[in-house]
Amino acid sequence: MAVPFSSSWPGDELEQQVRVGFLGCGTVGAEAVRILVERAEAIHRYTGIDLAVAAIAVRDPARDRGLDPALFTADAKAVVEDPDIDVVVEVMGGLEPTEELVAAALESGKPVVTANKELIAKRGGSLLDVAERANVDLLFEAAVGGGIPLIRPITESLAGEDIRRVIGIVNGTTNYILTRMTEEGGSFDEILADAQHLGYAEADPSADVDGHDAAQKAAILASLAFGTHVHADDVHTEGIRAVRGRDIGMASRLGYVVKLLAVCEFADADAVSVRVHPAMLPATHPLAGVRLSMNAVFVEGVSAGEQMFYGAGAGGGPTAIAVVGDVVDAARNLVQGARGPHVARAEVHPVTDMMSISNEFYVRLEVMDEPGVLATIAGVFGGHGISIKTVIQEGREADAEIVLITHPCEEAAMQATLRELRGLEPVEEVAAVLRVLGEDEG
Amino acid sequence: MAVPFSSSWPGDELEQQVRVGFLGCGTVGAEAVRILVERAEAIHRYTGIDLAVAAIAVRDPARDRGLDPALFTADAKAVVEDPDIDVVVEVMGGLEPTEELVAAALESGKPVVTANKELIAKRGGSLLDVAERANVDLLFEAAVGGGIPLIRPITESLAGEDIRRVIGIVNGTTNYILTRMTEEGGSFDEILADAQHLGYAEADPSADVDGHDAAQKAAILASLAFGTHVHADDVHTEGIRAVRGRDIGMASRLGYVVKLLAVCEFADADAVSVRVHPAMLPATHPLAGVRLSMNAVFVEGVSAGEQMFYGAGAGGGPTAIAVVGDVVDAARNLVQGARGPHVARAEVHPVTDMMSISNEFYVRLEVMDEPGVLATIAGVFGGHGISIKTVIQEGREADAEIVLITHPCEEAAMQATLRELRGLEPVEEVAAVLRVLGEDEG
Repeated sequence: MAVPFSSSWPGDELEQQVRVGFLGCGTVGAEAVRILVERAEAIHRYTGIDLAVAAIAVRDPARDRGLDPALFTADAKAVVEDPDIDVVVEVMGGLEPTEELVAAALESGKPVVTANKELIAKRGGSLLDVAERANVDLLFEAAVGGGIPLIRPITESLAGEDIRRVIGIVNGTTNYILTRMTEEGGSFDEILADAQHLGYAEADPSADVDGHDAAQKAAILASLAFGTHVHADDVHTEGIRAVRGRDIGMASRLGYVVKLLAVCEFADADAVSVRVHPAMLPATHPLAGVRLSMNAVFVEGVSAGEQMFYGAGAGGGPTAIAVVGDVVDAARNLVQGARGPHVARAEVHPVTDMMSISNEFYVRLEVMDEPGVLATIAGVFGGHGISIKTVIQEGREADAEIVLITHPCEEAAMQATLRELRGLEPVEEVAAVLRVLGEDEG
Repeated sequence: MAVPFSSSWPGDELEQQVRVGFLGCGTVGAEAVRILVERAEAIHRYTGIDLAVAAIAVRDPARDRGLDPALFTADAKAVVEDPDIDVVVEVMGGLEPTEELVAAALESGKPVVTANKELIAKRGGSLLDVAERANVDLLFEAAVGGGIPLIRPITESLAGEDIRRVIGIVNGTTNYILTRMTEEGGSFDEILADAQHLGYAEADPSADVDGHDAAQKAAILASLAFGTHVHADDVHTEGIRAVRGRDIGMASRLGYVVKLLAVCEFADADAVSVRVHPAMLPATHPLAGVRLSMNAVFVEGVSAGEQMFYGAGAGGGPTAIAVVGDVVDAARNLVQGARGPHVARAEVHPVTDMMSISNEFYVRLEVMDEPGVLATIAGVFGGHGISIKTVIQEGREADAEIVLITHPCEEAAMQATLRELRGLEPVEEVAAVLRVLGEDEG
């Protein structure tokens, strides 16, 4: 923390060396080790913290990684138990045996820094309990938003804020695909294939394109912003496989862009809603300009208004920077005998059932082009208490296309409407349904 | 800090009440007091910190402010010296007697939270020395970027980062004026008058429109980002009075927007450059979409790449949220006997003279429409070693307008070129000069 201005370096208490042990040394781990080694002097100069990488547990310790071979071991448990290791960095991923190793480190009084979003989203509750009992830090800035500082801003800088809504573009792969579909006009399948070819999407893209990665981040963000505990399994999750170029084009015509959003809302009834789905967002919204694989998290609070945090949400360098920031914090707290912000589940708010969430909806229907169809369809919406804001009808030979945007209505009413529409004779297909984040919502 | 997930609240050490004394109770102070009073229970639940507003020094303690009259005093010194006050919040502004009061509080071991950018930009060096010697926190998140979390992200989250450039839109009034000039096409004088009428600009707008407010924030940002000490007086400062609608229109045609930017660069030669001036920025740059009175700070680093922090840069609510976040931090450190990130001037980098800074330039000339003028003008640029990227020449009756964008060149060469152009017979006027932040720069 390059806080400047002062000429003297006072306490000796920070001068002790803090020894860091790594569990894992993949892309993020290797980059974090590199930064800790190459920038050790700069970090010491800026922060007063003297950090040394003292051990690295990897599957194959014999492989040459350009570092002192004596640092490497295959025995992760030994790193955790080594009395010379002060801080443990977990960058091995997965739940097993990771959870056990992290818990063991915390129980022995060692702060742990992790970049493992699955671990935090699924085991965060119990691991933070372990950290609490042991009175040590469990830090995870790198687990959400990659290098984008989110946890300190949300939990410390906004400690006094009444946060009402958090909307995030938190998955780079899907944002990359949707941006290219928007700007080039290609189909999902074409752009996905190209993204895989270029390394922007995995060979098995499901974790990204089906929204699971975003759901884990949404669970963590909602937990942080609202002081509650949301489990990844409680997040309503839809991916982008069903998004069509036709609807991205219609969105653009109507003044919107299509993004995969993590939406976390604190309702008046003290319930939170957390969901991941593609949505139409006004083109003037600050999130609308977040392109390609960049991420951003938009926070709305009662006093501070709208804020946005933008950056690279993944990648070795950005994520490693988040890890190193946490290591510096953990080390500072350790040598001072203090802890960072205490980790407490302030309240447990129920997660609102998706069926009772209100949104505006965009619906595109393929219908037979015959008289009275629009009236029939409008009647179905009206019968479920849904009023319509905008209609566009365009004839195409024997068929016609009807695009509607509704006023806000509950998910349950919309689903019932869609069921009824699908059973109607003149409706050939419910071709697309997208939620719309309007200016007047939330 | 609503870090959630855990079910138990462990330490008793945080349960002691921390008593906060205010110096000043204007817009920001009143809002911070309100948040501390109304959200005391929520803050305690989320952070474990039990805060009480115990004294407020104001000029007129008799005025009804809807709070217990016993809280108010006219004696600021008494608040600082009161042994029952644990943390001092300075929201009175100005340098005198503020500096003395803040120093006295720090010397007596009381952490100080301030929203006073002038104090930090001009007296930060010596006050942080005082804090260092007394081993207490001096926190000033509210002094730059209003409610936008900047100090924790830059100094803690990015502790391992090698930050190379910070570009900020850090003055809401000028951004409001430039946005309306861009979107409505009005002149500076018209829009300024309307902004004053609507309360977006002060009756005396000089601190904003001449760039002085932005320069103070630039000095603080550069100091934080580069671990050095930049004084506000060392910041090259130009305001927006000379920006013409004609040039905003040309910028738009060329794919740029005009913004008042605080630009802080860490050059390879270990020198920093810090400057505030209007500039043309590519329309695709994330800062280009920051509209009206919103602020944003864009950070470029070696590992994490590009990040941006966006929000309301001023106003009672946002600034008060930053104050409260700092109060929670100061209180947490106090009860733990710890301190936040130590405040150390890691290095003192010289501030590069403006004359040796390189930029692309946009130059608009009014010339006589006669043969050979363009060749003559191009020759002047070439004679000073400046190569030209783009030229647009448009005849208008007897006169012509020539717009040029140069490749990067040093300020000194550009100033010499402009002097020579002004002495040329066919050049009627050097109508506009704007620096251009190109994609290929920095």
